[in-house]
Amino acid sequence: MSGYPASVRIREVGPRDGFQNEPEVIATDDKIRLIELLGNAGLRRIEVTSFVRADVIPQLADAEQVLDAVRLPDSVSVSVLIPNERGLERALLHRQRFHEINGFLSASETHNLKNVGRSIDDSMAGLERTFARALAEGLRCEGVISVSFGCPYEGHIPRDRVFDIASRLAAAGASEIGFGDTTGMANPLQVRAFFEAALEALPGVALTAHFHNTRGQGLANVLAALEAGIDSFESSFGELGGCPVPAGATGNIATEDLVSMLHEMGIETGINLGTLLEASRAVQTVLGRPLGSHLLSAGPVDWRG
Amino acid sequence: MSGYPASVRIREVGPRDGFQNEPEVIATDDKIRLIELLGNAGLRRIEVTSFVRADVIPQLADAEQVLDAVRLPDSVSVSVLIPNERGLERALLHRQRFHEINGFLSASETHNLKNVGRSIDDSMAGLERTFARALAEGLRCEGVISVSFGCPYEGHIPRDRVFDIASRLAAAGASEIGFGDTTGMANPLQVRAFFEAALEALPGVALTAHFHNTRGQGLANVLAALEAGIDSFESSFGELGGCPVPAGATGNIATEDLVSMLHEMGIETGINLGTLLEASRAVQTVLGRPLGSHLLSAGPVDWRG
Repeated sequence: MSGYPASVRIREVGPRDGFQNEPEVIATDDKIRLIELLGNAGLRRIEVTSFVRADVIPQLADAEQVLDAVRLPDSVSVSVLIPNERGLERALLHRQRFHEINGFLSASETHNLKNVGRSIDDSMAGLERTFARALAEGLRCEGVISVSFGCPYEGHIPRDRVFDIASRLAAAGASEIGFGDTTGMANPLQVRAFFEAALEALPGVALTAHFHNTRGQGLANVLAALEAGIDSFESSFGELGGCPVPAGATGNIATEDLVSMLHEMGIETGINLGTLLEASRAVQTVLGRPLGSHLLSAGPVDWRG
Repeated sequence: MSGYPASVRIREVGPRDGFQNEPEVIATDDKIRLIELLGNAGLRRIEVTSFVRADVIPQLADAEQVLDAVRLPDSVSVSVLIPNERGLERALLHRQRFHEINGFLSASETHNLKNVGRSIDDSMAGLERTFARALAEGLRCEGVISVSFGCPYEGHIPRDRVFDIASRLAAAGASEIGFGDTTGMANPLQVRAFFEAALEALPGVALTAHFHNTRGQGLANVLAALEAGIDSFESSFGELGGCPVPAGATGNIATEDLVSMLHEMGIETGINLGTLLEASRAVQTVLGRPLGSHLLSAGPVDWRG
């Protein structure tokens, strides 16, 4: 167990997961400026928006404008969340502006039904068609499985059921699977065993952990995943975002808190923490309320002394 | 590394570390009621107050009244923080009301000077006299070493210097040493190596970890300490407390967040999480502001589904 990975990949999901959960619609110009700040900070994977229906999520109604206008370094892999085939067709009109798509479903039938109004099988069938079309366009596909570590409606989700869904997503063309602790039910003991088993059960697939800090265990779960050998995480600047259901659930782990811990542990991310904090301060200013990120209050560890 | 301890001891420090850092003085009756709620919740180690000078810390000017009035189960080990010999003499007038004393100093000269206006050697000399007197009265002694994992003024503190201070405290009669991450500079890699080495360097001494959640890594550091073999922690209900200097530093890890993680991992604490949350809600009501604890917002994990 001694060895942690020497470096870690981080996908910033704040511009999608964060912005979509804000009660107010953020101005398009602000979004573009904030995403560009994230690119300047060295984030190399950014989920910039989602092609959902504007009447369902007005917060992301400007997906096309954001995608077309944002200027990011060539080294950034831009991803968009695609809820269905219709969303993909919209996105494909801007094919040159992104590299990856992210499709999702839940590990539990009840959560999937409440979230998207369909069965897991129906979601899977849609993802198979969506991924096939995306692959034909030369896009990389990530499949994200919500409530992988427990469902607020169904409780424990057998690990093998989650891995079975992951296998089907991989067979459908996903080269990366994200496992979401959507409502913050995971604990480090479970996380470590989960990912040790996942690495065996899903060879040849890139595995990504997506934790929430709902119960304060977000970074402890990251540590457990690192110990299992996971080197890819999703997080949100400022600790934005999170599942709107159930109420009281806090956001994703904060990218700056994650980066601070990793850097202090000697694990590389390629991210400039100071510049990242500028982006988080900027989004805090735009939103006009204190965000959940700890680094925004405490600042980076200062070893100068 | 596979094995975590089967059970963990927790010392609740909120009534001292928390109450003393509140801008307003909490009413004595409220303090007594809150401490008794903590006893009802199954906390078996509670630091109930401190015998500091009332003109320095008016928040704890009622130390005698609290100590005399509070009714706790016989199973609770009551401790008081003792800043110096004068404080001990005041406390000894109520000798039958407590079982342990807690004396402290810093791992860095600068922090010790800024915190108590003395050198480490002067503090140590005082603690030697204090512990000798307390032992003669049949009291158990804990020595706490602040900024054990890094100092905001001096930066890195060599591990061996911390262990040397710990050895001197043990030689002075401390049967337990608490290592404080007073300003939240510790990271899990460091914590694990620190405690693995401490367990070798300090045989026969009970070792306790005292983490802050300043940068969101509090529970990740707990996990690392558990992996090193540590089974004793200090925490604060509601996430109260924290070092007043520097500004922006958040509190101790929240007892309820700690207990939630441990219970989810199958590690026993003897604490009823629901009753503990009643105590945390009660202190939140008394203080009239939202506290930092995550469980207060999210509630315990509900696996009923």
